Amino acid sequence: MNIKQAATDHPILGLLAERWSPCGFEDRPVPEADLRSLFEAARWAASSYNEQPWNYLVATKENVTEFGRLLSCLVEANQAWAKAAPVLVLGVVSLRFARNQKDNRAAVHDLGLAAGNLVVEATARGLSVHQMIGLLPDKAREVYQIPEHFEAWTAMAIGYKADPATLPDALKERDLSPRQRKPLSKFVFTGQWGQPSPFALQRDP
Amino acid sequence: MNIKQAATDHPILGLLAERWSPCGFEDRPVPEADLRSLFEAARWAASSYNEQPWNYLVATKENVTEFGRLLSCLVEANQAWAKAAPVLVLGVVSLRFARNQKDNRAAVHDLGLAAGNLVVEATARGLSVHQMIGLLPDKAREVYQIPEHFEAWTAMAIGYKADPATLPDALKERDLSPRQRKPLSKFVFTGQWGQPSPFALQRDP
Repeated sequence: MNIKQAATDHPILGLLAERWSPCGFEDRPVPEADLRSLFEAARWAASSYNEQPWNYLVATKENVTEFGRLLSCLVEANQAWAKAAPVLVLGVVSLRFARNQKDNRAAVHDLGLAAGNLVVEATARGLSVHQMIGLLPDKAREVYQIPEHFEAWTAMAIGYKADPATLPDALKERDLSPRQRKPLSKFVFTGQWGQPSPFALQRDP
Repeated sequence: MNIKQAATDHPILGLLAERWSPCGFEDRPVPEADLRSLFEAARWAASSYNEQPWNYLVATKENVTEFGRLLSCLVEANQAWAKAAPVLVLGVVSLRFARNQKDNRAAVHDLGLAAGNLVVEATARGLSVHQMIGLLPDKAREVYQIPEHFEAWTAMAIGYKADPATLPDALKERDLSPRQRKPLSKFVFTGQWGQPSPFALQRDP
């Protein structure tokens, strides 16, 4: 039994139940064809007015200098484990619509939709993604000359998850702990805030 | 040939290539077991500190009053087509961490991750989702008594897409137009902002 498999209350796709965010990665590069397909998956996400507000800065470990530059844009606590991943990515969001320069209220949400697609494609290819919010947007702006109204919002470590037995104790514990979530009744409401939807209280036969 | 199938430059999962956002929906209810699985899929998305900042208000057409209340929280342009869908949903984000009441910079992004999962599960079940940012957060707060530091951010129409031939001209045109996206070289960068990643310029053999 895989301790990281989601203990679902209702059936969902295997690809969604299997996904989790490892801290340990194997020292093994990701084929470029897989990387192309990951970003291609992100590309086809939905977005408000088809703005496609997602942009990515990518570094692979083969290029030591570039990898170090991207790693330096993460907070130290994330650098500590993310340096093991073969691929690091910054998710840079365009905060204004290109067509009229108005604020795009959906921009950060749509960056999340694109990440969702990327992660599903990664899972299907045997890859794991650990997403981060702990990064240094100002540092990233300086390092990569990110223009005004764009901002590094997320980061991702991508690669093949390591056998937890090979990890230092703190990471091992994290990568072996079961995944937990609130039940549907705590966040799926009908009629009034906090009132569970009747369908969400039923169990499937 | 399905005109709405993504014309991908690189291979991706069928479930991701098939997804699009129809304006036309069949008059056909969504089984409750499917609804449970859609929100179960959202439930297992990743989130910063496992905060799970996503919450949903759901109305199905069987309950005319509730459906009308939820519909009234959308902007008029969206009400016009979304009223045909059998299920309407508001995505309500928790903007602060429950554990320390600090702002959660990842909250809106993670609402997007959960939506991404929901949409993948919907596609697998033959359902379509049309996501919206055009809604009335203050109206939603009033109608549903949404508490402070929570905000209705997105909406979704969920159901079975209609045959475009049955739709009024404006919707028919929209639901028959091909989907378009920027190429990877315009948003996947390495080394510097705007400089395409070398791997993103390659074609797969």
